Amino acid sequence: MAERLAGKAVADAMKEELSQKVAAIKAKGITPKLGIIRVGARPDDLFYEGGAKKTCDSVGMAYQVFEYPADIDQAAFEQAVTAVGANKEINGILMFAPLPKQLDEKKIRNLIPVEKDVDCMTIGSAAKVYTDDPTGFPPCTPTACMDILKFYNIPLKGKKAVVLGRSQVVGKPVAMLLLREHATVTICHSRTDNLPAVCAEADVLIAAVGRAKMVKANYVKPGQIVIDVGINEDPANPGKYCGDVDYAEVEPIVGKITPVPGGVGSVTTVVLCKQTIQACEMQNGLA
Amino acid sequence: MAERLAGKAVADAMKEELSQKVAAIKAKGITPKLGIIRVGARPDDLFYEGGAKKTCDSVGMAYQVFEYPADIDQAAFEQAVTAVGANKEINGILMFAPLPKQLDEKKIRNLIPVEKDVDCMTIGSAAKVYTDDPTGFPPCTPTACMDILKFYNIPLKGKKAVVLGRSQVVGKPVAMLLLREHATVTICHSRTDNLPAVCAEADVLIAAVGRAKMVKANYVKPGQIVIDVGINEDPANPGKYCGDVDYAEVEPIVGKITPVPGGVGSVTTVVLCKQTIQACEMQNGLA
Repeated sequence: MAERLAGKAVADAMKEELSQKVAAIKAKGITPKLGIIRVGARPDDLFYEGGAKKTCDSVGMAYQVFEYPADIDQAAFEQAVTAVGANKEINGILMFAPLPKQLDEKKIRNLIPVEKDVDCMTIGSAAKVYTDDPTGFPPCTPTACMDILKFYNIPLKGKKAVVLGRSQVVGKPVAMLLLREHATVTICHSRTDNLPAVCAEADVLIAAVGRAKMVKANYVKPGQIVIDVGINEDPANPGKYCGDVDYAEVEPIVGKITPVPGGVGSVTTVVLCKQTIQACEMQNGLA
Repeated sequence: MAERLAGKAVADAMKEELSQKVAAIKAKGITPKLGIIRVGARPDDLFYEGGAKKTCDSVGMAYQVFEYPADIDQAAFEQAVTAVGANKEINGILMFAPLPKQLDEKKIRNLIPVEKDVDCMTIGSAAKVYTDDPTGFPPCTPTACMDILKFYNIPLKGKKAVVLGRSQVVGKPVAMLLLREHATVTICHSRTDNLPAVCAEADVLIAAVGRAKMVKANYVKPGQIVIDVGINEDPANPGKYCGDVDYAEVEPIVGKITPVPGGVGSVTTVVLCKQTIQACEMQNGLA
């Protein structure tokens, strides 16, 4: 039976530390503030926004929601995003994506100033992740994976980390972050020959493929650390969600595993706040 | 005994194809032109420059060398690089690095317009390589590795590619290019546990670690494809150079191997010309 790598313990410890940081920044007359840009009112976005606000509150940070109608046109939205970007009170920006189809998302993403881009929406931030420039913020989810591994003292240096999935949002950035920790990093995907065997070689397996319960018993080995990034509708339980890992099959075999829900997802809004606080420090010469 | 993956055959075939492309572009009244920016006159730079000029000549392209004194100051050199970047005749720019110590290299690299950055000197090009944007040029050496693999019909889809070395110039970009071809990609390095065993699992091993003859018999397996990117002074033969692979030890074991010299290095200036021609096509709406 595997040790359960609960996200809550990680989130609680991080929030404790961030609360102290925010208090110290406030003592200098500055309050870190997150700007949330939302177009329309999709339930998923509102759910995540609720979590982000709650986390901001719990660490003493400010936030402001900039909400726009779902049919906003390109010119108006460009102007709006530029204004949020230029707003001196806002230290970090979360913009929900995908944007509605009438908007040129690639162009709009890159209107976010890189120094406020706390969820890696811009090409400038992606470049910094790729080139190991610590002034660039990775997306929140891969950072959450790394924070979980760090909290639970999972050794990475020299170890075999296997990343299942090669998306720009999780797979590639988490591979870059694992390399920074001197792991040996394998990126595998749906086209990989003998995929289960490749995954089973990992000391640390990061499942970020976006397919419900794809990682079965033959993908893992005893002692392995499994970080499950997936958030999928559970085919067996309508209305519930599940990870990329078949927890019931895998948990009895591996050494340690993050649950879904209650794993990586519990840490991402805390990372959002952490990165906004870092951005605030950098913008104010406090870092 | 391994098949020798000679660079010359690859270079010859590419030059043939590029000559035809250049002729077609010239028929439209345009001549692709490479701008070479050199500070001082280091022997290594002059050697590579000589090869680049020869390749330009052989495919019918133009080139122009912009040479500056080794003690040029920051302001003057910024102005010079900006001017070459703005020069409408120049389609691609090769700038030799490292620059002398009095110059802020990071700042100067990023003065090269991304659309002319045919050797990936800018953060903008790096971002495009990382995010799979085909309008960005990877550095010439990783592209040369891919061109060699393609010329010799080495299958990559689903296969295990192991990249030894994680530099921004070769290791990381070649990993990104291998992923584009749907290989399963492992990046390993000096901190990797059991490094020889990790390398020996590869179907395709890319040695880009910069240490003379580091890859020994225990790093490889029968049937393996070995691409040796290293160019090191040969400790056993002063004045000669050698690869990252101990050719004498490895060649009898593996399936196919690039020699050093005569392998990857023979293809890089052809890639430089290929990418400049592509840049010319994009700049003129011919692509």
